[in-house]
Amino acid sequence: MNELRVIPIMGVGAVEKDDDLVEILLSAIDTQGLALEDQDLVIVTSKVVSKAEGRVVPFDGSEEHKVVLVEAEARRVLRRRGPLRITESHHGFISANAGVDLSNTAEGTAVLLPKDPDRTARRMRGEIKRRRGVDVAVVISDTFGRVWRNGVTDVALGSAGIRPILDLRGTNDANGRPLEATEIAIVDEIAGAANLVLGKAMGTPFALLRGLDPSYFGEGSISESVIRSANDDLFR
Amino acid sequence: MNELRVIPIMGVGAVEKDDDLVEILLSAIDTQGLALEDQDLVIVTSKVVSKAEGRVVPFDGSEEHKVVLVEAEARRVLRRRGPLRITESHHGFISANAGVDLSNTAEGTAVLLPKDPDRTARRMRGEIKRRRGVDVAVVISDTFGRVWRNGVTDVALGSAGIRPILDLRGTNDANGRPLEATEIAIVDEIAGAANLVLGKAMGTPFALLRGLDPSYFGEGSISESVIRSANDDLFR
Repeated sequence: MNELRVIPIMGVGAVEKDDDLVEILLSAIDTQGLALEDQDLVIVTSKVVSKAEGRVVPFDGSEEHKVVLVEAEARRVLRRRGPLRITESHHGFISANAGVDLSNTAEGTAVLLPKDPDRTARRMRGEIKRRRGVDVAVVISDTFGRVWRNGVTDVALGSAGIRPILDLRGTNDANGRPLEATEIAIVDEIAGAANLVLGKAMGTPFALLRGLDPSYFGEGSISESVIRSANDDLFR
Repeated sequence: MNELRVIPIMGVGAVEKDDDLVEILLSAIDTQGLALEDQDLVIVTSKVVSKAEGRVVPFDGSEEHKVVLVEAEARRVLRRRGPLRITESHHGFISANAGVDLSNTAEGTAVLLPKDPDRTARRMRGEIKRRRGVDVAVVISDTFGRVWRNGVTDVALGSAGIRPILDLRGTNDANGRPLEATEIAIVDEIAGAANLVLGKAMGTPFALLRGLDPSYFGEGSISESVIRSANDDLFR
């Protein structure tokens, strides 16, 4: 295996509705003296996708309004505690407050999750190929809590050009026995790795991963591969 | 922020009971032409910790015996489905089958989780300091499933020299409002990042992370910071 590099893309300012995210990304990469290569992977935090796609709504700052916004974004509420809702979003993501975001938003607004993050990732990948001639993977990431462990981590909401799950079923261990725990959610490990360099407070929205194993690249989407069906879920 | 490098440490053979893991690690790093530096972080997969600490038990290969081993390692069983158990281990980790591992183990054996991964991480960090004079963080990692997303990811079972949770409470966003989602489980994002270069099938047990933000280093343990108390848990 080779070394993996995780590189923050600096110098990106505020993103507004209808901004060209690919142009902003490519300019910032140029400014940093980098050039995209085949089998690079670009992380895009979902907040800037939402802003560029106009997923910004008025918000009066009250707990009551927050609950209204959250429940409108949810197709199901799994748990309630005070103003906190654990929800299943229209996409199928289970998280706190349906991903409705009140940090790093303009005064009087809240930011909703992107409508279709897999589609955005595919579109950005296609645009990068068209403008620069390179085959890169794209992952749209966001920050979710976990059930049994404190703290939040970044996970993937959308992806293109990468196999979200590395499937080692049928692979044997060093002793010739089938491997256990053989479906590795590399796309979420990638989102988390990027978050280590993104600097939460500064809001850097892009990172570049270089040196991922070539076998990780391929077809797939988060909606088809990563979202667990309710039938397979022991805790819904 | 600087670039983060995630480097697999290659050429490590099978680990046996009472092997000196720090010696094995340092030799492999030397062989690779690397030298540890202050604020490096070393990932050690829990399997080799368990083997070195003799946490290997006889296993007859049957589903019945597996369930007996798993239930002996659990202080509570949360869910049962066929031979699968979702358990709370004696440490407080909630995972499938109490972390009992049947891959990459010697014929007729199973591997249990390390007794006290935080203590092992502290001991290894101290030994590295003693032998090489450098201050590195150590994280013991293992592979766990998640509730609502397919696939497994690596998380931290033990740590030393790193703040497991980056606490940004009290930090404001670019608009001066308090950040949400402000306790980031960097230690789990670190474990996941390392898994991207470890190569599941090959069983490489060590990785080196270089370039982590200096603010990540400090005191803390997984048992105190990351394991969620049952009181705070909406899904137990």
